[in-house]
Amino acid sequence: MKTQVAIIGAGPSGLLLGQLLHHQGIDTVILERKSPEYVLTRIRAGVLEQGMVDLLREAKANERMDREGHVHEGVSFAFNGQQKRIDFKKYAKGKTVMVYGQTEVTEDLMKARTKEGGVSIYEAEDVQLHDLYTDKPRVTFVKDGKTVELECDYIAGCDGFHGVSRQSAPKDKIKTFERVYPFGWLGILSHTPPVDHELIYTNHERGFALCSQRSLTLSRYYVQVGLDEKVDDWSDDRFWNELKTRLPEHVAERLVTGPSIEKSIAPLRSFVTEPMKYGNLFLVGDAAHIVPPTGAKGLNLAASDVHYLSRILIKVYKEQRTDLLDKYSEIALRRIWKAERFSWWMTSMLHKFSDDGFGQRIQLAELDYYTNSEAGLTNIAENYVGLPYEPIE
Amino acid sequence: MKTQVAIIGAGPSGLLLGQLLHHQGIDTVILERKSPEYVLTRIRAGVLEQGMVDLLREAKANERMDREGHVHEGVSFAFNGQQKRIDFKKYAKGKTVMVYGQTEVTEDLMKARTKEGGVSIYEAEDVQLHDLYTDKPRVTFVKDGKTVELECDYIAGCDGFHGVSRQSAPKDKIKTFERVYPFGWLGILSHTPPVDHELIYTNHERGFALCSQRSLTLSRYYVQVGLDEKVDDWSDDRFWNELKTRLPEHVAERLVTGPSIEKSIAPLRSFVTEPMKYGNLFLVGDAAHIVPPTGAKGLNLAASDVHYLSRILIKVYKEQRTDLLDKYSEIALRRIWKAERFSWWMTSMLHKFSDDGFGQRIQLAELDYYTNSEAGLTNIAENYVGLPYEPIE
Repeated sequence: MKTQVAIIGAGPSGLLLGQLLHHQGIDTVILERKSPEYVLTRIRAGVLEQGMVDLLREAKANERMDREGHVHEGVSFAFNGQQKRIDFKKYAKGKTVMVYGQTEVTEDLMKARTKEGGVSIYEAEDVQLHDLYTDKPRVTFVKDGKTVELECDYIAGCDGFHGVSRQSAPKDKIKTFERVYPFGWLGILSHTPPVDHELIYTNHERGFALCSQRSLTLSRYYVQVGLDEKVDDWSDDRFWNELKTRLPEHVAERLVTGPSIEKSIAPLRSFVTEPMKYGNLFLVGDAAHIVPPTGAKGLNLAASDVHYLSRILIKVYKEQRTDLLDKYSEIALRRIWKAERFSWWMTSMLHKFSDDGFGQRIQLAELDYYTNSEAGLTNIAENYVGLPYEPIE
Repeated sequence: MKTQVAIIGAGPSGLLLGQLLHHQGIDTVILERKSPEYVLTRIRAGVLEQGMVDLLREAKANERMDREGHVHEGVSFAFNGQQKRIDFKKYAKGKTVMVYGQTEVTEDLMKARTKEGGVSIYEAEDVQLHDLYTDKPRVTFVKDGKTVELECDYIAGCDGFHGVSRQSAPKDKIKTFERVYPFGWLGILSHTPPVDHELIYTNHERGFALCSQRSLTLSRYYVQVGLDEKVDDWSDDRFWNELKTRLPEHVAERLVTGPSIEKSIAPLRSFVTEPMKYGNLFLVGDAAHIVPPTGAKGLNLAASDVHYLSRILIKVYKEQRTDLLDKYSEIALRRIWKAERFSWWMTSMLHKFSDDGFGQRIQLAELDYYTNSEAGLTNIAENYVGLPYEPIE
């Protein structure tokens, strides 16, 4: 089997990259360890930066998003019993974000690829990457019990944090940076109308809380919990009570509760791999970096990498600009580190870390300064909607 | 002995408060444990915010400052071998800072007070505060072996972190917030021309460095050192070499070295006392709060408290607005916490904390974002020149 770009992983980043390259006449094969049905059960983020929305339009996977997604023109920070809104239109030069679930994005991209005849091989087992440092890299995998070999020019590692791609990078060339946070997010999904038309990030002495949403009838709420907490110990009642306690009174009294349809605890982690290129293997998204969910950057950073890698590969195939391949890592990482910073900062400012009185006062002073000054509001807004992509020259 | 406002401490805050009240016909007595000569040996900060400069003019202690002080219209951050300037004129609405030593400020204020016949009692020993929660508070002290009693309406505690004022607050009413940093600043003063016409704050993998100055011929330089370091282990040569290593090459090669005329190590601490009022005792400056020197806020925060307390006391005596007394603590603390946040942030971003790779990358991402975006530059500039004082109504 042969292709130009072998894409490992059929999550949103692999599928989006596949679409963008396919539309430029570049041949791709996507290999995915799981079934399409399994991929679509993953419930993840749901806030898309303008840049990612634009890429989905370019990928022709935007029809349902444009119909069902919700444009948000702001976000709120709650602390000390008050709620402060950050107006994106005013402070981020008119840019906005789109609330639309990652599961839907993935489904739309899968359908678009199928419609256009792109090759995706699901349930491809034992994927292995070979000869990364030659100009004839290969991928082998087992499908229906038979070993298959895929020859290619380049490999895009879009298979997430636990995938084989990063693990295939030579140990002596890879450098990682990590921060593990001493808490997790307990999240629930419920068929209830969201408490606000926008997201509310809350700093409370009992811990962080977030009011998010997937649609006008599907709410997503989170509360910070200790890493030793178990989902089974959190009845719906206990969750709703804890959430209400942490929200400002005027928000809590509007909260509509109902049975949870999903409930889980996720740890928070910052993680970056340097570089993001190993010979002809290019790491993309979670395969290379993780952000804590505070700030909704995870999916958008995958899109950021896809943006840069697709632009570079298109120039490689159309203009023989192979010199650009060596720039991928540096260009992609510049934007990654800016978003890592923002996610780390949002996490640090909004969560309870310990009974450190000075730290809590500093958090409140930060929230006070950033939500009451033009410079602070602009900082939050321009990072939240997503910093601009750099041109590739 | 009787007065209206007893001021404990003849440092810059006590002297400044004395001048401002004296000019409004309010009687004050300043009590100081040490001699004037001793007070003037303390070498401290030397960057005055516009608001403090204005207060010194109001205090009629500005003549020499206006003649010898240097207006700085910007400051630099150095990291990764580069130097980024923050332009105050552009990003802080035309506000600037004045470089003029604290020792000189103190001397000018002493002279102004003497000239105007204000009463200062130096070498007042065993100062004790009494009856704070009555409308006839008293201060007793020993002068030339005799115990003296000073009756007053109000007591201003301007006697610094180690003074008697904060220690006189009732234990059950006082709350403190503290952060101790795991390093100190080794500083030297030398008769050499400063390496730059403005200050340079440097983040380096070996640790923080600061190029500061007192005048065009008197430089002040600092390097971050471990808390276990001893001044005696740092020859001038060793200091200059370490400083050069940490500065960007184009700065290091301009550095003029020379013998040190002062060399010392200072620890870094964040500390806030709440409230700042205990009956008729009002804490001012270092008596209530400490900032790490990164950001040059210590002396300016003393001036900030003096600003608020002087305005309130003037309204109390001129307009019988005794209701304002209870607002001092809240109003003063709002600005204190903003500056505590800025000083903590500058310290966190610029110093080496440990061999934490993720933390170092986050520092560089912070420096990158804040020195390359309008929002970031505005944030640094408006905090560095000093946030505006709130009106008192």
